[in-house]
Amino acid sequence: MTDKHADDTFKSEEGIHTDFIEKMTYGDYLQLDTLLSSQKRLSDHHDEMLFIIIHHVSELWLKLIIHEIQGAITAIQQGNLQASFKMLARVSTIQNQMIQGWDVLSTLTPAEYMEFRGKLGKASGFQSYQYRLVEFVLGYKTPFILKIYEKDPEIHAILKEAYQSPGLYDVAIETLAGVGFPIHTSILNRDFSQTYEKDASVEQAWLTIYKNVDHYWELYQLAEKLVDIEYSFQQWRFKHMKTVERIIGHKSGTGGSSGVGYLKNVLDHSFFPELWDIRTKM
Amino acid sequence: MTDKHADDTFKSEEGIHTDFIEKMTYGDYLQLDTLLSSQKRLSDHHDEMLFIIIHHVSELWLKLIIHEIQGAITAIQQGNLQASFKMLARVSTIQNQMIQGWDVLSTLTPAEYMEFRGKLGKASGFQSYQYRLVEFVLGYKTPFILKIYEKDPEIHAILKEAYQSPGLYDVAIETLAGVGFPIHTSILNRDFSQTYEKDASVEQAWLTIYKNVDHYWELYQLAEKLVDIEYSFQQWRFKHMKTVERIIGHKSGTGGSSGVGYLKNVLDHSFFPELWDIRTKM
Amino acid sequence: MTDKHADDTFKSEEGIHTDFIEKMTYGDYLQLDTLLSSQKRLSDHHDEMLFIIIHHVSELWLKLIIHEIQGAITAIQQGNLQASFKMLARVSTIQNQMIQGWDVLSTLTPAEYMEFRGKLGKASGFQSYQYRLVEFVLGYKTPFILKIYEKDPEIHAILKEAYQSPGLYDVAIETLAGVGFPIHTSILNRDFSQTYEKDASVEQAWLTIYKNVDHYWELYQLAEKLVDIEYSFQQWRFKHMKTVERIIGHKSGTGGSSGVGYLKNVLDHSFFPELWDIRTKM
Amino acid sequence: MTDKHADDTFKSEEGIHTDFIEKMTYGDYLQLDTLLSSQKRLSDHHDEMLFIIIHHVSELWLKLIIHEIQGAITAIQQGNLQASFKMLARVSTIQNQMIQGWDVLSTLTPAEYMEFRGKLGKASGFQSYQYRLVEFVLGYKTPFILKIYEKDPEIHAILKEAYQSPGLYDVAIETLAGVGFPIHTSILNRDFSQTYEKDASVEQAWLTIYKNVDHYWELYQLAEKLVDIEYSFQQWRFKHMKTVERIIGHKSGTGGSSGVGYLKNVLDHSFFPELWDIRTKM
Repeated sequence: MTDKHADDTFKSEEGIHTDFIEKMTYGDYLQLDTLLSSQKRLSDHHDEMLFIIIHHVSELWLKLIIHEIQGAITAIQQGNLQASFKMLARVSTIQNQMIQGWDVLSTLTPAEYMEFRGKLGKASGFQSYQYRLVEFVLGYKTPFILKIYEKDPEIHAILKEAYQSPGLYDVAIETLAGVGFPIHTSILNRDFSQTYEKDASVEQAWLTIYKNVDHYWELYQLAEKLVDIEYSFQQWRFKHMKTVERIIGHKSGTGGSSGVGYLKNVLDHSFFPELWDIRTKM
Repeated sequence: MTDKHADDTFKSEEGIHTDFIEKMTYGDYLQLDTLLSSQKRLSDHHDEMLFIIIHHVSELWLKLIIHEIQGAITAIQQGNLQASFKMLARVSTIQNQMIQGWDVLSTLTPAEYMEFRGKLGKASGFQSYQYRLVEFVLGYKTPFILKIYEKDPEIHAILKEAYQSPGLYDVAIETLAGVGFPIHTSILNRDFSQTYEKDASVEQAWLTIYKNVDHYWELYQLAEKLVDIEYSFQQWRFKHMKTVERIIGHKSGTGGSSGVGYLKNVLDHSFFPELWDIRTKM
Repeated sequence: MTDKHADDTFKSEEGIHTDFIEKMTYGDYLQLDTLLSSQKRLSDHHDEMLFIIIHHVSELWLKLIIHEIQGAITAIQQGNLQASFKMLARVSTIQNQMIQGWDVLSTLTPAEYMEFRGKLGKASGFQSYQYRLVEFVLGYKTPFILKIYEKDPEIHAILKEAYQSPGLYDVAIETLAGVGFPIHTSILNRDFSQTYEKDASVEQAWLTIYKNVDHYWELYQLAEKLVDIEYSFQQWRFKHMKTVERIIGHKSGTGGSSGVGYLKNVLDHSFFPELWDIRTKM
Repeated sequence: MTDKHADDTFKSEEGIHTDFIEKMTYGDYLQLDTLLSSQKRLSDHHDEMLFIIIHHVSELWLKLIIHEIQGAITAIQQGNLQASFKMLARVSTIQNQMIQGWDVLSTLTPAEYMEFRGKLGKASGFQSYQYRLVEFVLGYKTPFILKIYEKDPEIHAILKEAYQSPGLYDVAIETLAGVGFPIHTSILNRDFSQTYEKDASVEQAWLTIYKNVDHYWELYQLAEKLVDIEYSFQQWRFKHMKTVERIIGHKSGTGGSSGVGYLKNVLDHSFFPELWDIRTKM
């Protein structure tokens, strides 16, 4: 019995490169040696690999989300809204991945997790600096993460810059002002290291846009891209909370947080509050 | 204006650990330094980051799939079918992630990809050894990948072992024989480095099981877990093909393969052929 | 230019039946005339069709969920847990459809909905009796829906029977008692027209099962099937709430409810409370 | 024990309407009596309900897709591309529902289906006129369905009109001609009752657009919306084929078609061939 099928498949594949001594391979390009050496279990529990890889996938998606939102912020500042729309739509697509990603973690049972949870010590997703960077670029600023990374100058600098910089919503509001909407100067000159709080002049501008969609088509599209992102973010947060509750119940988090209680509290925060409030007023 | 909201949220979060000098952090545990240093663009094109991260996420999911299928193979060999079901169900969940993952790559337009494709040289997903490992553990054995990795002894050894070992279907068939189904010895003693080809005694065994589901409940569940995996694998392959076609059309692959043509050919291969054939005969 | 492609496709399709005078057709079997005559817009607004069809799809899925859960209740009462698992797994799959179904409604903008909302009068999803039936079979009993349907004897009878009957969780608990767990008689003999409230003897039983999964494999599977359903139900509820908020903000519902406020309150209710509480105690 | 929780929830819900004698209810508006009376099983097999409801949901989605594509055709003809984009994006979202909808049917096992398949006689999804209408508005014209509905004048008239009318791609090409692209007159004046076949002048126009995305932003968006729809349609078709194969294998379809063989053949048809071909030429 010979491997006929595989032979057939490759009959017309004689061009496939098999000699890579002096050429960059797929593995070289993607730094696979490094990537695939990063999964180090502290226990010999079968399911710890799942636990690590799910966190790795999340961190990679977060890195891409930060890259795309920062690209969108720059594009909006340059007045290139169309370019920003592509990046923001991509963010929504990635968020859908992340929302459904919890289904993989849900296959970990409470009993299984308990068998290696002790090894994690104080390590906790609460400490993810990339997650906080996403919150920063979306305008939610919590200083405690800066304190955690005080001893890591490189990450601290990245965090500090994003902490002090305008977020996605700030540049959107600047765009509103730029086309003539009378935005309060207290908003335009605000301290960006503070979490954004809602403002009447911003609400009025969005309301005008939503009532005149044809006239303000581009700004309306921008607004809906932001709503898409927050809509998905809320789903992600909620499913995160329920997944944690499913696996550890209401125990405290490994990082010292109140666990599910904390996750539930943040559900009430809105990044782009006026974009939701105007729904009630239309 | 103070950051009231964030303050409120953290009021009851005083237990959060912020000093990690001598403790393992989330970043330490997950080797985030290493993980997040693996994304090295060769161009300064914004979209190359998307391209790299999608491949990284895929490679991580592949690593987890291999881990789970190998775990399932061992569990089945030990007669612990229930443990294998949890691992195989997890594989299906991961596959759903991978199928939908193509939606993220689809946000890359042909024009954007052309702007940095030249930098990739001969590197190609065709060379992914983890993808071939998945095919190996599922019983599809193509020797060319061994040749590609001849100069990398560690990976070559991993590939060679999986190439010569029984796959998931082989141990399932051994289980059939173990409970008394008259499986041909030519199948039980077959050369595992060859792709599995269908056999009448195996088909007869599955047919009996599918016609007496109540009596053979566990073996039926095993069969359906395999069908789930192949059903998802085919969808993944098809969406891979259409996504590649969407981005590069019918150009040759960077690795020298015929691209979409190759991807289309492999669609016809079935890992567990009898499990599909019996559908026609019920 | 002839329709060559279509010709080719049908070359080997000469067996296709085209004469149906005396035979049952696809349309006959599915009562398509009736089904497809049920979408009656009250406005000539393009988007009202979307609004109607989304509700129709939801109502059909609800009908199937009720069918499957009632089938599962019967199977569990008969001691046929395996049969119930297939039905309950199917419910989870349907729920995934329903969760993602909100994405279709989300394509309706606030402004578009405002253009025909006035036509709906007092009609509201709040009045869906099938939705209440799902809550009833899951053990959450609210009498107001019975009052709404007082003048429709047929529906009222269906509602009343489900209102007074044991729900899915009740028969699961009976099963626990049946295999010897010391469940309080106040639970076994409880008034089923009341919403289930948590009980220490039930919690103790589940805790024993979760700490001895290998020994109680079937009961553990039953428990996890219930958790799957509640986990999805909560996601559905949350996304419902956010979608409503996205479209109408915090306006009152057409049926007189407090809209988003109401939807948020019910998020805190748990159908199977002990199955979540034991997570904290493991 | 009183129903405290439900009481609490409704404390602030006193405004809920419970008296509907003279008002239109949710059920009235949605014609729920009619809708929910359309599921008539021919057997008493539990799983036939699943089979019927899945087809009903599909037919409702098809109705909405036809509504949206016909709306988009009109909008494009009127030069209102933005309006068409919203409708076409909605079609993609619905298609995602339909693709994942096969997962529900996949929970039906071959053995279960065999138990009631005999009752279906010659009825077959092959005869769905709405499915053919979707193909018609997308430009794939097969006359056999007209013959099947010869004795139903109302449906026959609907089919005939769509059969002879320009499809979505035809109006897109007219738009290209309208803005000055030199489209062959043989294409602009073609017999719309024939399936569209590819043309060099159309390819050249799209190629120009894809190489100058910034200049032709709106036309590029239109093209990508079409590609989105075909990309999803192909996935739907493929998953349809694999799901049918999973349930009945390679048996002939109930309607006399070759079943999986037929489904596989149509996979090769492309609605918008130049939009795929230009990928190879960029």
